[in-house]
Amino acid sequence: ENTATKKYTIAVIPGDGIGKEVTPWAQKALEKAAEGVAEFEYEPFDLGAERYLRDGSILPEDEEERIKKTDAILLGAVGDPRIKAGILERGLLLKLRFDLDQYVNLRPSKLYKGVTSPLANPGDIDFVVVREGTEGLYCGAGGAVRRNTPNEVATEVSINTAYGVERVVRYAFKLAMKRRKHITLVHKKNVLVNAGDMWQRIVDKVGEEYPEVTHDYSHIDAATIFLVSDPSKFDVILTDNLFGDILTDEAGAVVGGVGYSASGCINASDEYPSMFEPIHGSAPDIAGQNKANPTAAILSAAMLLEHLGFDEAAQRIHKAVEADIEELGSTVRTTDQVGKDILNRM
Amino acid sequence: ENTATKKYTIAVIPGDGIGKEVTPWAQKALEKAAEGVAEFEYEPFDLGAERYLRDGSILPEDEEERIKKTDAILLGAVGDPRIKAGILERGLLLKLRFDLDQYVNLRPSKLYKGVTSPLANPGDIDFVVVREGTEGLYCGAGGAVRRNTPNEVATEVSINTAYGVERVVRYAFKLAMKRRKHITLVHKKNVLVNAGDMWQRIVDKVGEEYPEVTHDYSHIDAATIFLVSDPSKFDVILTDNLFGDILTDEAGAVVGGVGYSASGCINASDEYPSMFEPIHGSAPDIAGQNKANPTAAILSAAMLLEHLGFDEAAQRIHKAVEADIEELGSTVRTTDQVGKDILNRM
Ligand SMILES: CC(C)[C@H](C(=O)O)[C@@H](O)C(=O)O
Ligand SMILES: CC(C)[C@H](C(=O)O)[C@@H](O)C(=O)O
Repeated sequence: ENTATKKYTIAVIPGDGIGKEVTPWAQKALEKAAEGVAEFEYEPFDLGAERYLRDGSILPEDEEERIKKTDAILLGAVGDPRIKAGILERGLLLKLRFDLDQYVNLRPSKLYKGVTSPLANPGDIDFVVVREGTEGLYCGAGGAVRRNTPNEVATEVSINTAYGVERVVRYAFKLAMKRRKHITLVHKKNVLVNAGDMWQRIVDKVGEEYPEVTHDYSHIDAATIFLVSDPSKFDVILTDNLFGDILTDEAGAVVGGVGYSASGCINASDEYPSMFEPIHGSAPDIAGQNKANPTAAILSAAMLLEHLGFDEAAQRIHKAVEADIEELGSTVRTTDQVGKDILNRM
Repeated sequence: ENTATKKYTIAVIPGDGIGKEVTPWAQKALEKAAEGVAEFEYEPFDLGAERYLRDGSILPEDEEERIKKTDAILLGAVGDPRIKAGILERGLLLKLRFDLDQYVNLRPSKLYKGVTSPLANPGDIDFVVVREGTEGLYCGAGGAVRRNTPNEVATEVSINTAYGVERVVRYAFKLAMKRRKHITLVHKKNVLVNAGDMWQRIVDKVGEEYPEVTHDYSHIDAATIFLVSDPSKFDVILTDNLFGDILTDEAGAVVGGVGYSASGCINASDEYPSMFEPIHGSAPDIAGQNKANPTAAILSAAMLLEHLGFDEAAQRIHKAVEADIEELGSTVRTTDQVGKDILNRM
């Protein structure tokens, strides 16, 4: 027996819309990149809109338990216009992020050579957003009284803990040490004074342990300006769950479209598997048409490999993607063609 | 006596930083535009960082009472790095917006001829953001326990009422009727299900009374993409307090900088005066250097005139600003030079 290769189980959740078209390519890229290095076994999960419409289940307990036992998760996208907003997002995607305690939502933004940014002078864009993944306005607290009456009141509660903030702040500082050693905390501390003040204090405190890393602060509104006017100034952006959601979509647009943006929902304590997904959604408008760009999904496979410690295998994907985009980035191709082109280069 | 001109009292609050440099130009433009049409009396208020550092007051009750009795307010900017974030913003700016029940925060975004957008192909950008101004995460609800300990928990609560949402939704539909008759509701209803669902239901309901107005929906994250990839698609963007804050700064960047973006905090029921301000902040980095662009402040004077019903006088300002930008928009000028140039054209 080959004792040099390790065995891993990967949960595969294609989900909805274009998620189903791009995820097979992520899996193929993973497979090919890991040849001779690691052995992957895939466990597919039929979760998402079709399943929900068929039998009403969103994330059955026994399936979640099986997912928890895997080594990592490849996810496509979640969301379907036939289903009321929030049901699948909260019942499946966010439930996994929360239950599997994936507290670091890691979202690199890079302008690849060959991609046309919508900005006239984009500069050299290469930053990472470290988005908190298990707290804030995403925790599902809040409610409504007197629904459907003129006296309705609806609340949403953002819960933030020093425990939850400190661990993601530490992750960001460690990451900054491997990069250009600069962190920008993004919040809205002039309005959200309770949470904002806590984030700032914890960043200041942890920052003292990393004298080589400089850090500054930007309000979320100002940060959306800088992403357009001077995106190359960022190295590591550290922010909460909602602001991270907003900034990474804008960042995706700035680097030429969310079709190139992958993400990792990371349990950095390795108690549960981490999950890797493109940041784009299920894109119902182009689903089923073999039009979606699988690059982001393929890049999420590279992030999965890095997470498991296979940096060289991840590099194989990165190099193939970079070469593909540089040569063919502006050509209109089908999902399958892009997938094949990238795999052929690996 | 001249009975043709009406008399109005305008509260002037230059505030902090560049607010003090641009507000005098807003006042001069107002004065000149209204010549022969209306008579303005100005009541200056010394509020902001200097005052706070001098005697500890932020917004004394008697001064707020005097402000409430005026017909409209010209405000510069609030915020100073010497003072902990939130104190002036919440104690002065937001307190006025809330106490004066300025529930419509109206923020037009227009790409003027002569301004260079950071976008390579900006298209014809001309939309208005109708931002709710008295609810949501800005209401100051929330708190913290065990501050400064590892067990700290900090919350922020977004309070949303059918009463508060419906009135701003109605304003947006009325405004859309005077424009290109399209509204985009922006929220995050797949995560913030309580508030998002209420917003959507109220938009659907009020929309039935305006069959000529079409409306669609975009998640806040997707909206930040469209502002970069296809900003000309928007006519009226309708959104809550926080999302409106974020989108209007990004929109300001997209139309060539927040130096051209004015806003009105409007009490559309006319119980209290409305307030007009540039959307930019106090910009401490360039304050006191005669560098800030007073155009946004001058445009806020035009919004004030429109609000009081002086559309022709407002047009005088708009025309002068448009001509100035078209001819000299790309020239580096001092605050005073831009102010003089615009006034000379009126
Ligand atoms: C689908 C949605 C719940 C999700 C989020 O808001 O986190 C998505 O926008 C993302 O960024 O992964
Ligand atoms: C200064 C701050 C409180 C304010 C806000 O968040 O509303 C500003 O950003 C704005 O947009 O007017």
